[in-house]
Amino acid sequence: MARDERGVTPRSEDFSSWYNELVTKAQLVERGPAKGTMVIRPYGYRIWELLQAELDHRIKETGHENAYFPLFIPDSYVKREAEHIDGFSPELAVVTHAGGKELDEPLVVRPTSETVIGEMMARWVSSYRDLPLLLNQWANVVRWELRPRMFLRTTEFLWQEGHTAHADEADAMRETRQMLDVYTEVARDIAAIPVVPGEKTPGERFAGAVRTFSIEGMMGDGKALQAGTSHYMGTNFARAFDIRYSTDAGELELCHTTSWGMSTRMIGGVIMTHGDDKGLVLPPKLAPYQVVIVPIARAGQAEPVLTAVRELAARLKAAGVRTHVDDRPQTPGFKFNEWELRGVPLRLEIGPRDLAAGTALLARRLGDEGKTPVALDAVPEVVVTELERFQRFLLRRAVDFRESRTSTVDSWQEFTEAVATGWASTPHCGRPDCEAEIKAATSATPRCVPVEAPGESGGCVRCGEPSAYGRRVLFGRAY
Amino acid sequence: MARDERGVTPRSEDFSSWYNELVTKAQLVERGPAKGTMVIRPYGYRIWELLQAELDHRIKETGHENAYFPLFIPDSYVKREAEHIDGFSPELAVVTHAGGKELDEPLVVRPTSETVIGEMMARWVSSYRDLPLLLNQWANVVRWELRPRMFLRTTEFLWQEGHTAHADEADAMRETRQMLDVYTEVARDIAAIPVVPGEKTPGERFAGAVRTFSIEGMMGDGKALQAGTSHYMGTNFARAFDIRYSTDAGELELCHTTSWGMSTRMIGGVIMTHGDDKGLVLPPKLAPYQVVIVPIARAGQAEPVLTAVRELAARLKAAGVRTHVDDRPQTPGFKFNEWELRGVPLRLEIGPRDLAAGTALLARRLGDEGKTPVALDAVPEVVVTELERFQRFLLRRAVDFRESRTSTVDSWQEFTEAVATGWASTPHCGRPDCEAEIKAATSATPRCVPVEAPGESGGCVRCGEPSAYGRRVLFGRAY
Repeated sequence: MARDERGVTPRSEDFSSWYNELVTKAQLVERGPAKGTMVIRPYGYRIWELLQAELDHRIKETGHENAYFPLFIPDSYVKREAEHIDGFSPELAVVTHAGGKELDEPLVVRPTSETVIGEMMARWVSSYRDLPLLLNQWANVVRWELRPRMFLRTTEFLWQEGHTAHADEADAMRETRQMLDVYTEVARDIAAIPVVPGEKTPGERFAGAVRTFSIEGMMGDGKALQAGTSHYMGTNFARAFDIRYSTDAGELELCHTTSWGMSTRMIGGVIMTHGDDKGLVLPPKLAPYQVVIVPIARAGQAEPVLTAVRELAARLKAAGVRTHVDDRPQTPGFKFNEWELRGVPLRLEIGPRDLAAGTALLARRLGDEGKTPVALDAVPEVVVTELERFQRFLLRRAVDFRESRTSTVDSWQEFTEAVATGWASTPHCGRPDCEAEIKAATSATPRCVPVEAPGESGGCVRCGEPSAYGRRVLFGRAY
Repeated sequence: MARDERGVTPRSEDFSSWYNELVTKAQLVERGPAKGTMVIRPYGYRIWELLQAELDHRIKETGHENAYFPLFIPDSYVKREAEHIDGFSPELAVVTHAGGKELDEPLVVRPTSETVIGEMMARWVSSYRDLPLLLNQWANVVRWELRPRMFLRTTEFLWQEGHTAHADEADAMRETRQMLDVYTEVARDIAAIPVVPGEKTPGERFAGAVRTFSIEGMMGDGKALQAGTSHYMGTNFARAFDIRYSTDAGELELCHTTSWGMSTRMIGGVIMTHGDDKGLVLPPKLAPYQVVIVPIARAGQAEPVLTAVRELAARLKAAGVRTHVDDRPQTPGFKFNEWELRGVPLRLEIGPRDLAAGTALLARRLGDEGKTPVALDAVPEVVVTELERFQRFLLRRAVDFRESRTSTVDSWQEFTEAVATGWASTPHCGRPDCEAEIKAATSATPRCVPVEAPGESGGCVRCGEPSAYGRRVLFGRAY
């Protein structure tokens, strides 16, 4: 497999190798010493912090409060909801010894926190006046992975998990859909990933949920990435943990609960949606550095250039632009390659001739427009405008790509062709064994029933039985 | 033990019961299901978020970058630094099973991350140009506690841990002291806790450190709380994990490393520094609600009052004040008690008569000034000023209290009297067995050798041997 001078296999040659090499080379992440764990390096963690800030703000705006629940969950709690434990038990990590002794009851390292939060909700809710109870936590969770992949499937990952309790189904469903909308908005407006929000088919539901919704993004290889989920639990967890409230009339009722989560997996989504042969391409809203300034100066000429560069950096920072000055001893060419690899949206070059002309050279990460000279005075204003353009361009490009790789199909032949390179929108019977047959034949699974799909009847693309959902289902291969 | 109508033992009667009852009654925290764990409720977690934001800002301003390292550390890593494992092994929680199987090598749940970060630093540092390497992470850590106490000693807690690598001792010591200064500033200016920064005696050092510094706050019962630590590790961890760099001259040298941490323990410090018989007293900079507005209105008169209250709340929020409107059906008296218990600095009451007069009644949590009518137009300005006054007042009161309970002593008799109710500043020989004798006789331990103490010789207050530190040592009983 040929690698270019950056040491990363081109995306166009081998998507999987490109991804695995790039996440390390771009200094986003490294394997941790324990199997399947990851070390998120500062450049990768900063992307997470920027995403967190945007999501946390929206979670608070919609009335939720952050809290923190314990990492360790008694084994007996996890077992209390039957479908939940069936879904999670193969993935659990278990603490059996602590404080130098064997524990009486093993402790599970949380794979998700429905159970411990359910136990606490039961203590906190007594009357209808306590509802809705709207909680969120930012935390690490652990799910043992046999085939780990950085950001996408790791033994430990970071996420937020929202957990809410409501008086009835209508209110809980409103919440479930509201948070699906929040995820859709964050993916689209911040990560520039035009995800499709929809409902999971029964076979793809969260363990213990009555209804599961997800956002699905199309990656650069045409596969789908589930980038956030929102679940309506019905009264399953309320029954298992006795979360009840007294109504205005004094009757005791079970709560209806929800949960919803978005994780560091999103970073993988950003990489696989926007990256190219040269490396990462970061949307400006998530770029640790939105612009890098490279001084171009030979020994003896450096000082005036560096002074101008620092002054420009200060003005850019004052304009709210995340700016980095690369004054390392390496050559400009080395730096250009490195910042392209690391996905910085804009680059400014300033040398003695630029300085004399009172300009800087502006280069874009997707540089089909070449380099543009910009008057130094105008740089902050131009950069802010160019960053907005870049953000919009990435989203539009991703929408175009997704549309070009999504086919509305009604025959099995068309279906197999569509899911070989992208997604198929098709009627489906909803039978689990038909889903299984399709997966065995094509590796494609039902990603979701898009919430915005128009009502439409039809025969299942595989077996011809009537459509179970009254609208088309999106199928694709998935991460 | 008498409890007042709030259901909390008065602080003046029993400090320990007061604390344990208050943290729950004020809805800060609850015991988690696994032994020694805590559930941090939204009101407590918001205090942590506010403290985090202040500290994170300063950590970044001083050039550090956030990253994230794995929760699970292979057993063999933790054992690589001899003193480190001796110090931590009784407190470790160990994962022995995962993914349905027994693991080949047990995984330790991090009690602190020197070892796994040391391993990564060794990969990332090769030349003097890579130094200093300045990292921080926000994370949960686990240390098995036999006698847990909410916020102060829990099996799992939240903290930040900074880890840095430097070319030489001078640079590493500069870092160690810089972060001690940052902690001192955050404690003083944000939490209104006038901590004493100083160096730990050898017996109180972190496991594996060459020098340990801490900040020590005096709690309302005269005991000390160690509220942050900053360690110079020398080359101990660099040697254990092979963190080496090549100098400008091409020679291979060991790095000098540091680590430093501040945790959710600080919340306990805030409670025990400022609280009183009526409950919590929160410094405005850490108060989830800085002002609570209580509408006082009988049925039929409520609407104009509520309209005025909401309009006022909007103006306060626009002025950057964290404002809460308590429009629950309970009586004003119930609400006053509850918000006093929960430590809200300022309360505004508005009833029909206030509305007619164009005023609101302002009450302070430390209400020796009674209630003051404030013109509605002037409320945001007055509130901002009063919050600043309140913050300054808490710090001054805590300084006065600490000074009143700290004695400069040179005789054993004076020493025992001083540490019965507070701190003693005294010469000490530095011998571990003398420290042990003092502890056995009085429960007091050397808290620190204050960095700002003037040079002074003298004989040990216990054994008469010459002072080991050339300055007085602060002794006290401690949490």
